[in-house]
Amino acid sequence: RSGEMAKLTQLIDNEVFRAYATYATIVLLKMMLMSLITAYFRITRKAFVNPEDTASFGKGESAKKYLRTDPDVERVRRGHLNDLENIVPFLGIGLLYALSGPELSTALLHFRIFVGARIVHTFAYLIPLPQPGRGLSWAVAYTVTISMAYKVLKTVLYL
Amino acid sequence: RSGEMAKLTQLIDNEVFRAYATYATIVLLKMMLMSLITAYFRITRKAFVNPEDTASFGKGESAKKYLRTDPDVERVRRGHLNDLENIVPFLGIGLLYALSGPELSTALLHFRIFVGARIVHTFAYLIPLPQPGRGLSWAVAYTVTISMAYKVLKTVLYL
Amino acid sequence: RSGEMAKLTQLIDNEVFRAYATYATIVLLKMMLMSLITAYFRITRKAFVNPEDTASFGKGESAKKYLRTDPDVERVRRGHLNDLENIVPFLGIGLLYALSGPELSTALLHFRIFVGARIVHTFAYLIPLPQPGRGLSWAVAYTVTISMAYKVLKTVLYL
Repeated sequence: RSGEMAKLTQLIDNEVFRAYATYATIVLLKMMLMSLITAYFRITRKAFVNPEDTASFGKGESAKKYLRTDPDVERVRRGHLNDLENIVPFLGIGLLYALSGPELSTALLHFRIFVGARIVHTFAYLIPLPQPGRGLSWAVAYTVTISMAYKVLKTVLYL
Repeated sequence: RSGEMAKLTQLIDNEVFRAYATYATIVLLKMMLMSLITAYFRITRKAFVNPEDTASFGKGESAKKYLRTDPDVERVRRGHLNDLENIVPFLGIGLLYALSGPELSTALLHFRIFVGARIVHTFAYLIPLPQPGRGLSWAVAYTVTISMAYKVLKTVLYL
Repeated sequence: RSGEMAKLTQLIDNEVFRAYATYATIVLLKMMLMSLITAYFRITRKAFVNPEDTASFGKGESAKKYLRTDPDVERVRRGHLNDLENIVPFLGIGLLYALSGPELSTALLHFRIFVGARIVHTFAYLIPLPQPGRGLSWAVAYTVTISMAYKVLKTVLYL
């Protein structure tokens, strides 16, 4: 059994894999933060979607008025969905990329730019910054993922 | 080739990794069930979103009235999206956590509580249970994921 | 360190794993394409959701009229969300399946049918094809994922 653990430890000790693990965890924590921001805006704006969530405001019409959409809540939710659409490809393609034997410096460049761009994207969405701020940050992270996908397919292609 | 397969088998034979594989698969199957529940409510409530889905109800106005939202359908869809938002981080962070060499008992505790909390969350959303039932089950699974992320970053941090 | 890299290379040299890496990357690129199609329809239909995205059309009422939903945009977005709901389980379960030591030919069959069905699903959604075209392509990919999940649980079950 210690032999098996050693092998797993070797995987996690590889520097490229450690870099992937670090940046993937950071960008997933950033995505998880969107849930808390949504909850914060739902509570401060009193804008809920489930009737059972407004029960503490009383019954009947007095609670029903809080079942409504709020622009700030919807904005955070769009940012959250955009995270899902872009971070899921990064997780999958990034893992395969980390296993495809890239140079450490090249891999770090990809991971850092992706995570940096997604953090900028979140600020650009929530502040919001004027366009093309959000569009550019989205495109940078998208391009990094495409670049990793190209490396993966070049290395492993098996159809 | 048998040497390579042996190495892969060693990964899948590691008990922590097997536990991760088991619980990740279970919670993904649970998430996939949401699609079937959505389909069930769309058909029984006759509430569709794509015009081509109502063609079997006839043409023109007779079919058009089934292009509508239904509270039960929307509720399942919200539960499904909440699954995506929370199970994606578990998949990524949980995999890295399983590779970071945790104690088997600690890892099992994390995986079991996460999956149990997400199953409770689904029931709390669909029944629905009064709050804070759904909120608590969400928070428990969220906290478990944060705990695994902390272990991953402590073990592998490479910025 | 070269010893570690060798081990990683062995993983990526395994033919089943290479097949998984190839098809997972292809289906993720297909999913990422949905973002570009959404952007294309938003721009050509002039249907936006964020006020800052319409600033180039002028200020006030002249820009505000472009803050609207468009059936084509919404259709692509539904296809994108359906991708997330189905490709996330494939990524997780497929990775574990690839590590569970399946026959290469069986694994290729699973990966090819899944990715083929999801590509058909996208065309069925966007054209749109009459039902049950979209429904069947969805069900085929769903069934493939269940089949892989069964193999994973049979191989690794550790509760």
